[in-house]
Amino acid sequence: MSLLPSLRAACPNATVWDAGELASRDPGFDTRNFGASALVRPTDTASVAALVKFCAERSIGLVAQGGRTGLAGGAATSAGQVICDLGGLNRIEEIDPFARVAIVQAGTTLGALQEAAAVHGLDPGIDLAARGSATIGGMVSTNAGGIMAFRNGTMRHRVLGLEAVLPDGRTFSDLTRVLKTSAGYDLKHLFIGAEGTLGIVTRVALRLDPVARASATALVGVPDAASAQRIVLHFLGQTGTRLTAAEILWRRFAAAMQKALGYAPGQLPLEAPCLLVLGLGADSVETARAALEDGLAAIWEEAAIVDGLVASSEAQAAAMWRLREETEQIERMHHLPPSFDVSVPGGALDQYVARIEAGLKKIDASYAPYVFGHLADGNLHISINTDGPLSHERHEAIEDVLYAGLNESGGSFSAEHGVGLDKRDAYERHADPVKRELARMIKAMIDPGNVMNPGKVVSGE
Amino acid sequence: MSLLPSLRAACPNATVWDAGELASRDPGFDTRNFGASALVRPTDTASVAALVKFCAERSIGLVAQGGRTGLAGGAATSAGQVICDLGGLNRIEEIDPFARVAIVQAGTTLGALQEAAAVHGLDPGIDLAARGSATIGGMVSTNAGGIMAFRNGTMRHRVLGLEAVLPDGRTFSDLTRVLKTSAGYDLKHLFIGAEGTLGIVTRVALRLDPVARASATALVGVPDAASAQRIVLHFLGQTGTRLTAAEILWRRFAAAMQKALGYAPGQLPLEAPCLLVLGLGADSVETARAALEDGLAAIWEEAAIVDGLVASSEAQAAAMWRLREETEQIERMHHLPPSFDVSVPGGALDQYVARIEAGLKKIDASYAPYVFGHLADGNLHISINTDGPLSHERHEAIEDVLYAGLNESGGSFSAEHGVGLDKRDAYERHADPVKRELARMIKAMIDPGNVMNPGKVVSGE
Repeated sequence: MSLLPSLRAACPNATVWDAGELASRDPGFDTRNFGASALVRPTDTASVAALVKFCAERSIGLVAQGGRTGLAGGAATSAGQVICDLGGLNRIEEIDPFARVAIVQAGTTLGALQEAAAVHGLDPGIDLAARGSATIGGMVSTNAGGIMAFRNGTMRHRVLGLEAVLPDGRTFSDLTRVLKTSAGYDLKHLFIGAEGTLGIVTRVALRLDPVARASATALVGVPDAASAQRIVLHFLGQTGTRLTAAEILWRRFAAAMQKALGYAPGQLPLEAPCLLVLGLGADSVETARAALEDGLAAIWEEAAIVDGLVASSEAQAAAMWRLREETEQIERMHHLPPSFDVSVPGGALDQYVARIEAGLKKIDASYAPYVFGHLADGNLHISINTDGPLSHERHEAIEDVLYAGLNESGGSFSAEHGVGLDKRDAYERHADPVKRELARMIKAMIDPGNVMNPGKVVSGE
Repeated sequence: MSLLPSLRAACPNATVWDAGELASRDPGFDTRNFGASALVRPTDTASVAALVKFCAERSIGLVAQGGRTGLAGGAATSAGQVICDLGGLNRIEEIDPFARVAIVQAGTTLGALQEAAAVHGLDPGIDLAARGSATIGGMVSTNAGGIMAFRNGTMRHRVLGLEAVLPDGRTFSDLTRVLKTSAGYDLKHLFIGAEGTLGIVTRVALRLDPVARASATALVGVPDAASAQRIVLHFLGQTGTRLTAAEILWRRFAAAMQKALGYAPGQLPLEAPCLLVLGLGADSVETARAALEDGLAAIWEEAAIVDGLVASSEAQAAAMWRLREETEQIERMHHLPPSFDVSVPGGALDQYVARIEAGLKKIDASYAPYVFGHLADGNLHISINTDGPLSHERHEAIEDVLYAGLNESGGSFSAEHGVGLDKRDAYERHADPVKRELARMIKAMIDPGNVMNPGKVVSGE
């Protein structure tokens, strides 16, 4: 039997698409996502297990896909491979408002879970711009971080338990619902951030936390990141309100976004070397706005604040957030601009940005970075103002500038997007060799046939 | 050369004790801790690595020890084994108040780190009664939880990076200082909670969080745990204050503690089926006390509160906390009482306690549990009112009552004390078989000679 009829026989209740069908569909954020020979969309764990066994027996590479919003090529596929689309496992199985736990299938979108939890005054405690498409399974697999990680941790810190289908078709079942478990090696952490290379996550138990009853947003112009960090420390030190977001935009990025979004001059205070978008939660909107006003006034001189505005309406707050979140505008200015995602340790953001600006200029005098990101955890997103893809050598030269010393100083060359395909080389060149060897051994032990997402993160094709 | 001179030659700068010296010293919480033939106290990672190599080459079991406050026999040793005492690695290498990160050596006590961080208005975000002796390395190795885990997570959620000496003497170096890293398998989580069976943790990078400027404590009498949980949800739902503790004491435990501590009748409101110790942080003591008063008043009827008192002084707050924390009083009433540490999912605490009370009575009509623990994360500590150690069969019968259904329902038979030696049987009988098999494979892969803490958690002697 050829591939498609065999797949349909192995997974009788699943939707199955062939390469032609795939070619006619939207592949998501990455055109490489739909290069496979087939896509299978199971609707339960047993069907995922059947698909895994099918592929393992035939040594067919199997690539799990969620919302296809990944930014490191972790879901890219090629001819001969099969996609396991988790979109059919999209039920929120349970929300326990008393225990503050959600049990969701892997294909549930973050947005759907946020909405369902909000009914109970709860929230998964993690948020990112792709919330409408990104799935919980995909976010677990890339250890997504987002806007609130500085407070609530990354996806790894939100997962209480998970279920995953192993490469041999067995199910690793650890749907712990409690925060405290010290009952042997906590192996669920192998699957979190493994980008589907060790198994396919099918169900997840997540912590929920009470949301602030109200919130306020401010846009603050500052001379540099150090100033923004002083502001953030000031708000973090207050117990009476809850800082929920602290996003930074360097001027080149902010100016490009302002232009792309068609904001009128003076509509928002945008004329500063860095902009800070602050979110503050409190028990009422009035309290939140007043606390933002008072807090900024109290730190104004010390932080040398240039300009600032507390949003007086939801619409104004949304306009501030569009500046930060509609990053696809950059992709409209440059075709596939080389993009990066680093964690800079110790709060040394200004030095880092100055260093990479100088280093990039040495590679090409026209190169300049768009820089923005999550101030309070040091996670910067960087796009270069040039069309891609670049030659391998050129890309490596840029990486050498951006990643130099990061690992040694306790940062990360991949903060929240994962390694996928695009950072494979960087991983080999920048990750600790002992860690890499242990990772290879674990991959070989759990997936000896290299069936699960081959060629990604740790393995060759 | 016999063992002691050889050890001294291998680790020239380390303190070395023989069995006789060990016999004359305080073994900590567990008399089995000092059963080894020697103890070596290195003062740096290189010396730990030399000791590991020494033991690996000779197939000598090596057991890491920190504060020796473990409650599951994880640090127990026997003749022929060598102890690696991390007490010589006790330096706080760095506190970065700007980035809110501490780098500490594994033998640093929690108390020492709490004090050093407090100077900067920061805190490691984890607290437990043994804070004066428990070390960061030991807490990492058992994935300790404690009082604030419901808010800040367990030790696993506080660790940003770590360094560990592997069984082959190499150093796994992942001293990441940033919250966000998705750069391949996050293998530090293998060492967290592994109780020294996969390597010896030597250095740790920990998150620090701003402490509330002030706090208040209340003791509240309630009819049952469900009532206490309603109170906790009420305070969790407020953004203007920060719930920092919610400890529950069932009546039998509270009454025994009251008597042991010699508290006068009426000194504190202790006459209720359950007592709740609440801690609330705020920007001032007045705000914290007022918020406790107001919050309790607001929920009084709905939660059917029996009695309650907000501490009006530090001394009164300390008296409330002694009721919860001086649990060694129970050990004075019963010799080695069988003790347990479970996570009960879904907030079903009253049903759980009723079920185990009935089940224990069926084993022995005189059996009754002392129950107390961390209400907001469902972690209960249970001691039986009898002298130990019990026969293997009797102990297993008690475990069957206490652990029945916990794993299946998403709880845990070992919440925060680890598996060690004492829960080895329970692990084999109650942990998921696929998880156990993966764990065995990982142990065999990383420590093929079974040198690191043999016989604990996953392995036979």
